[in-house]
Amino acid sequence: MADQITKRSVNYSQWYNDLVVKADLAEQSPVRGCMVIKPYGYAIWEKMQRVLDAKFKETGAQNAYFPLFIPKSFFSREAEHVAGFAKECAVVTHHRLMNDPEGKGVVVDPSSKLEEELIVRPTSETIIWSTYKNWIKSWRDLPIMCNQWANVVRWEMRTRLFLRTAEFLWQEGHTAHATSEEAQAEARTMVEVYADFARNYMAMPVIVGHKSPNERFAGALDTLTIEAMMQDGKALQAGTSHFLGQNFAKSFDVQYADKEGKLQYVWATSWGVSTRLMGALVMAHGDDNGLVLPPELAPIEVVMVPIYKTEEEHSAIIAKMNQVKSALEAAGHSVKIDDRDTLRPGFKFAEWELKGVPVRLAIGGRDLQNGTVEVHRRDTLEKTTISIDGVDKFIEDLLVAIQKNIYAKAMAFRDSRIQKCDSWEEFKEKIQQGYFLLCHWDGTAETEQKIKDETKATIRCIPVDSVVCKEEGVDIYSGKPSHERVVFAISY
Amino acid sequence: MADQITKRSVNYSQWYNDLVVKADLAEQSPVRGCMVIKPYGYAIWEKMQRVLDAKFKETGAQNAYFPLFIPKSFFSREAEHVAGFAKECAVVTHHRLMNDPEGKGVVVDPSSKLEEELIVRPTSETIIWSTYKNWIKSWRDLPIMCNQWANVVRWEMRTRLFLRTAEFLWQEGHTAHATSEEAQAEARTMVEVYADFARNYMAMPVIVGHKSPNERFAGALDTLTIEAMMQDGKALQAGTSHFLGQNFAKSFDVQYADKEGKLQYVWATSWGVSTRLMGALVMAHGDDNGLVLPPELAPIEVVMVPIYKTEEEHSAIIAKMNQVKSALEAAGHSVKIDDRDTLRPGFKFAEWELKGVPVRLAIGGRDLQNGTVEVHRRDTLEKTTISIDGVDKFIEDLLVAIQKNIYAKAMAFRDSRIQKCDSWEEFKEKIQQGYFLLCHWDGTAETEQKIKDETKATIRCIPVDSVVCKEEGVDIYSGKPSHERVVFAISY
Repeated sequence: MADQITKRSVNYSQWYNDLVVKADLAEQSPVRGCMVIKPYGYAIWEKMQRVLDAKFKETGAQNAYFPLFIPKSFFSREAEHVAGFAKECAVVTHHRLMNDPEGKGVVVDPSSKLEEELIVRPTSETIIWSTYKNWIKSWRDLPIMCNQWANVVRWEMRTRLFLRTAEFLWQEGHTAHATSEEAQAEARTMVEVYADFARNYMAMPVIVGHKSPNERFAGALDTLTIEAMMQDGKALQAGTSHFLGQNFAKSFDVQYADKEGKLQYVWATSWGVSTRLMGALVMAHGDDNGLVLPPELAPIEVVMVPIYKTEEEHSAIIAKMNQVKSALEAAGHSVKIDDRDTLRPGFKFAEWELKGVPVRLAIGGRDLQNGTVEVHRRDTLEKTTISIDGVDKFIEDLLVAIQKNIYAKAMAFRDSRIQKCDSWEEFKEKIQQGYFLLCHWDGTAETEQKIKDETKATIRCIPVDSVVCKEEGVDIYSGKPSHERVVFAISY
Repeated sequence: MADQITKRSVNYSQWYNDLVVKADLAEQSPVRGCMVIKPYGYAIWEKMQRVLDAKFKETGAQNAYFPLFIPKSFFSREAEHVAGFAKECAVVTHHRLMNDPEGKGVVVDPSSKLEEELIVRPTSETIIWSTYKNWIKSWRDLPIMCNQWANVVRWEMRTRLFLRTAEFLWQEGHTAHATSEEAQAEARTMVEVYADFARNYMAMPVIVGHKSPNERFAGALDTLTIEAMMQDGKALQAGTSHFLGQNFAKSFDVQYADKEGKLQYVWATSWGVSTRLMGALVMAHGDDNGLVLPPELAPIEVVMVPIYKTEEEHSAIIAKMNQVKSALEAAGHSVKIDDRDTLRPGFKFAEWELKGVPVRLAIGGRDLQNGTVEVHRRDTLEKTTISIDGVDKFIEDLLVAIQKNIYAKAMAFRDSRIQKCDSWEEFKEKIQQGYFLLCHWDGTAETEQKIKDETKATIRCIPVDSVVCKEEGVDIYSGKPSHERVVFAISY
C-alpha cells in the first residue's frame, strides 16, 4: 500500500499528491482545476467545519447565505479589490443552451446573452456589503456578524489538490462595526480562533502575525494570518483575518446614524479558512506510510482488525471487539471494526496506516486465550500488547497522548527550522534548505520585492506579541534601520 | 408588526412574500432570481440539515463534494436529461476580466474564451457518474452512496423566495447499485426518509407516491415524491427520489464485474430536497400574525420577555429567567431572554410571534410576588399563568404538545380538502377551490395533458400502499377504464 506512495525524501511534492489520492481524500475532476472531495476527505472537512462553526457561534457570529453570482459592475467599485480578485475568474455570459442546428449535441443560444455578465464569486465582500446597505440604518443595527460556508472560484492556472484549486470550499465571515477599534478587535479575535483551531485540533503550530502591506488582502488595511511550517520547511498560509477599514462601506455607501444622529461609515472585517487546511493537515504530519491524523479530526479514531482461523474464533473476537467499541463510542469516539472477509489482516493494517487512523487494535486467537489485545499507534508506529480489561480507558488516554505527541513533534520540527538570521549569505543558504528566518526588514516594499526576486522568499508575517522579534537592528538586505524582526520563508 | 403583513384571506401569495421578508428569513438580492438567506432563515435550514444529514448517514450514505461546473458536452450524453435540464442554465464562457480600454470599469477579456463552455450545475448526475466510472470496477465496490450539500442553478424566469429561485441550496444523493432491485429499494428508502422528516420534524402531512411518466425527473425510470398541501389547498412537491435505471451508467459507460466476472451496467438512484422546504414550512403553518414554527425546527424554542418598572424588579426577573433557561438548555432546548431595553414588551411579543417562536414566557412584578409566570403558545395563541416551580417540565411537555398540535392541525385541514371525485363538473369546481382530488385516470399522457390544459391541475402522484386508491373505475375525463385513483391538484 505505502509502496504506491513516493517517499518524502525522494520527492516531497509527489509524495503529497500520491498521498491525497491514495488515501482517498480527493482527486482531479474532468473539469480543469476543480477537484472531487471523496467521502474520506470530506469526513475530515466536516469535522473541521463542526469545530470551527461552533467556535464562530461562540463569538456571536451567525450563518447566512449570499448569492453565488456577483454582477460584474460590483467589482469596479473597490479599486484595489478588483485588481486583486476580478482578473482570473469564471464569467457567466449566457443563460441558455439549445440543440445544435447541425445536430452535434448542444450549443450556447446566442440570444440568451446577459445584459450584464455575472462573476462566480471569488470572495463575497462586494455582494455582502451591497446587502448590508439595506440592513444597517442606525447604531442599533450594529454589529452584524455573518459567516457563510460556501464554494468560491478563482481561475488558477497551476492547481494542486486542496492547496490551490479553481473551485474550493471555505467559510467567509463578514462583520460590520460602529468603530475602527471594534473592527480591529474582531479581526484579532478571529485570527486567534484560527490559531487555536490549528494548534489544538490540527495539532499544527502556527505563527500569528500581520501581513506586510504588499501581501495584504486586496482592499484591506491590515491582514492577520496564521502561518504553518510544512515538513519541507515551506510556509503555508492557513487562515487570514482582515481589517477592511471603511473601504467597502464607502464603495457601497453603507452608513449608520450614531447615537447623536450623525451619519458614519461602517467599519468592516472579513476572515476565512478553506479546504486548503486539508492540504496543510496532510503535509504537516503525514509520513512515508501515509496520513497521520490527529485524533480530534480523524473520521475514524480507532480501527479494529480481527485475526482468526476458525469461525468460532471469529465470533468470539468480534464479540470482544463490540464490547470495546460500545465503551469507546459511549465516550464519544468513532470506532470501526474492519470485518471484511476478502482481505488479509496485513493488507488492512497497511490500508488504515495509509489513511492515518490514530489507533489500531488487533485481536487474534492467542489474545483470546490470554485476554489481551494488540494496540498500535499510528504516530509512532509502536505496538504494545495489553490486557483487554480496561482497554477502553487505555485507548482514551492514548488518543489524548497521540494528539499531544503529533503537536509536539511538529513543534520540535519547526523549532529546528526556525532561527534568527542577520547574514545575507546565510539567509540565501538557509532559505533554500527550508527555514523560517527571523530577520530585520526596513519596512519597504522595494526591499521585500528584491529579496523575493533573488530568493523566492516572502515575508510570511510580522509576528504579533513577539518578545523575540521586538529588537533594534538593520535590514538584512538593505542595511537600513529596523525595529523588529519579521518571518521570511518560501511558501506554498 | 403583523399589520405589515397582508392577510391570507386578502392575498395568500402576498402574505407569503411579506412573511418571508418581514420574519427575516430571506430577501431578494441584486442578482436576478438569487436570494439572500438571512441568519434567522439560515438557522432553520441548518436545523433541517442536521436532522436530514444524520438520517442519511444512518442509511449508509456518506457526504462528498463534486465540482460546481459541468462541461457542456456532458449534457449531450443522456438524451432526456439534456432536454430537462440543460436548457435554462448559467453558462461560463470566459475566465478573465480586464480593465476597459476606454476606462469604464472592467470588461470581459475576449482572449480568455474557454474551449468548451462550462455549465453551472443544475443537478449533478452527469459529473458524478463520470466520476463513478473511475470508482467502480467490481461488485466489491458497490453500493456507492454519496450525498452532497451544495448550491445549484436553474435559470428560472419567474422566481419566488425559497419556492423557485435561480440559485438554491439543496442536497443531492447519488447511489450506485449492482441490481435493479437494490436501486429501487434505495429510492423507496429515501423517499420514506423524506416523508418521515416532513411529518415528524416539519409537522407537515405528505402523500408518498410515484410521479406519472410525464412528471418524472429527466432521465429517471421512476420518480417517487412527497406531496404536501399548503393552506390555499395547492400542492407543493417537497422532495423526490429517483430510480434512474441504467441510463446514466450507460451514458458514462459505468460497468462492474459481477461475481462471475461478467461486466454489468450499474443501477442508479438520486434523491434530493432543497431550500424549497423553507417555503413549505412557512406556507403550511403560518398565520396572519406570522410564522408558526414546529419546535423541532425552531432556532429559538422558548423566548422570555421581562416586564419591569424598577431596576430591582428587572434583576430579580432576569435571575428567575436564567434559572429556567439553564434547566431548559440542559434538556437540549434553545432559549432566548429578550432583554433589549430599547423596546417595549408589546413590541417584543409581536416580533417573536412574527418569527414563530413556539413558546413565550413573560414575568412581571406581580408574577414575582406570586411566584408565577405567563406562558403563551404560538400555535394556538393561548395564554396561561402557572407557578414558576416546575415550569421547565411544563414547557418541555408543552413543546411536545405544540409539535403534535401543529401536525394535527395541518392534517385536519388536509383531510377537509381531500376527497374522491368521480364527476368532471365537480372536479373543475373543487380543483379551483384548492382541493386534492382522488380520481381515476386512464394512464395516458394525453388525458393528463388535456386535464392540465383545461384546469391547470396535474397528477401530483400515484400514491404508494394506498388502500383507498386501489379500486376499479373509469377515468374522470376520458371515461376509459382505470385500476386505481391518483392525486390531482394545482401545484406550486
